[in-house]
Amino acid sequence: MIDFIAFDADDTLWYSEVLYVNAQDQYTRLMAPYRPAGVVERELHETEMRNLPVFGYGVKGFLLSMIETAIRLSDGALTGREVQSIIDLGREMLETPIKLFDHVEATLETLSRSHELMLITKGDLLDQEAKLERSGLAGYFSRVEIVSDKTPRAYRAILAKHGIAPERFLMVGNSLRSDVLPVSAIGAHAVYIPYHLTWSHENDVGQRGEGLDYLTVEHIGELPGLLELLNGGQ
Amino acid sequence: MIDFIAFDADDTLWYSEVLYVNAQDQYTRLMAPYRPAGVVERELHETEMRNLPVFGYGVKGFLLSMIETAIRLSDGALTGREVQSIIDLGREMLETPIKLFDHVEATLETLSRSHELMLITKGDLLDQEAKLERSGLAGYFSRVEIVSDKTPRAYRAILAKHGIAPERFLMVGNSLRSDVLPVSAIGAHAVYIPYHLTWSHENDVGQRGEGLDYLTVEHIGELPGLLELLNGGQ
Repeated sequence: MIDFIAFDADDTLWYSEVLYVNAQDQYTRLMAPYRPAGVVERELHETEMRNLPVFGYGVKGFLLSMIETAIRLSDGALTGREVQSIIDLGREMLETPIKLFDHVEATLETLSRSHELMLITKGDLLDQEAKLERSGLAGYFSRVEIVSDKTPRAYRAILAKHGIAPERFLMVGNSLRSDVLPVSAIGAHAVYIPYHLTWSHENDVGQRGEGLDYLTVEHIGELPGLLELLNGGQ
Repeated sequence: MIDFIAFDADDTLWYSEVLYVNAQDQYTRLMAPYRPAGVVERELHETEMRNLPVFGYGVKGFLLSMIETAIRLSDGALTGREVQSIIDLGREMLETPIKLFDHVEATLETLSRSHELMLITKGDLLDQEAKLERSGLAGYFSRVEIVSDKTPRAYRAILAKHGIAPERFLMVGNSLRSDVLPVSAIGAHAVYIPYHLTWSHENDVGQRGEGLDYLTVEHIGELPGLLELLNGGQ
């Protein structure tokens, strides 16, 4: 029997990666005088991976990685005005209105009648809080956890803190790396909702997914039916 | 009777503002070809204040504000190499070893025998977690809360979440704005430990402090004695 359902936020409840993709498009155009788009994208990705342990997930780290990459690829020829344009791309991302996926509000409304709902997300604290506030969904979640990384250890700590047994807990999200595998690894339930624009890092998990148990649905609106099946079958 | 003692982290348990001051020193030297130090400092402070709602507290926001200010004050003449030097200042701040204030470890050791200790800090999530880990102090704190801002509402939410009555809760810190006034405002106890290098923003509270109740000690080592007095007097 599942009592607690936790949701990832970015690209599970609302669009997020599309903002990164759009910003990166504008960034490669800005960098066109210096290097071809393919090189810019590859180098940016490498900078991001290298900076992740120091700058963490989120727009501010992405911004700093874009600036560093631009300086390197321009051999230092980048102008102050170009750097400001990059910063403005990030500011725009932080201020873009939240757009929910289809079925989100109705699904949360339905599930909140029978389950306790949580939000578990990673990224910049201030940014994630602001998005939850602006999403209008805050009222559905009795518990909100913003973490710096979604590891088995992080999930174990959250469940311990709230006194929740793993078998009563279900996590829902679009990332195998963050929402599915670590949850399955600690003996809790996970539902994977694939989304074609998910950041490659989040699903680049090699063979780690094999042998682990999780369910997949096409969109969040299928959750209530799935839960009825699951609970009916026990 | 006080059961729960919560500590601020930066400039209460370990040195932090000195890293900002040193970085700002190097920054004004870097900007010397463009503007005098006084102008650079004033403009940087204004940029920080303007960016706080979007970028939040912490090194990454500080970095982005330094870059923006440098571009503006150089009329766009700033070079890529100079921008990279600014980013390196931030990276250095994030990687500097933690230095504890005197008396911290002994005081936490003493108080942890009679009280439940918490850590309540604001800033970049990943950075604050990493500092706590590196400080060697994590084991003293049964609860850790990293928040985006320390308002009366934020403190009320923390106390509610942990089921703590305000009169059983004491907050200790170096910021009137963040650690003392909002805590006093919700009817909990606060101890102020002034520190001469505290960021001006944190103590620039105008007349708001008047009429609110808090105690002041000179250093953290005075806390156990103060608590004995307080508990003995009740």
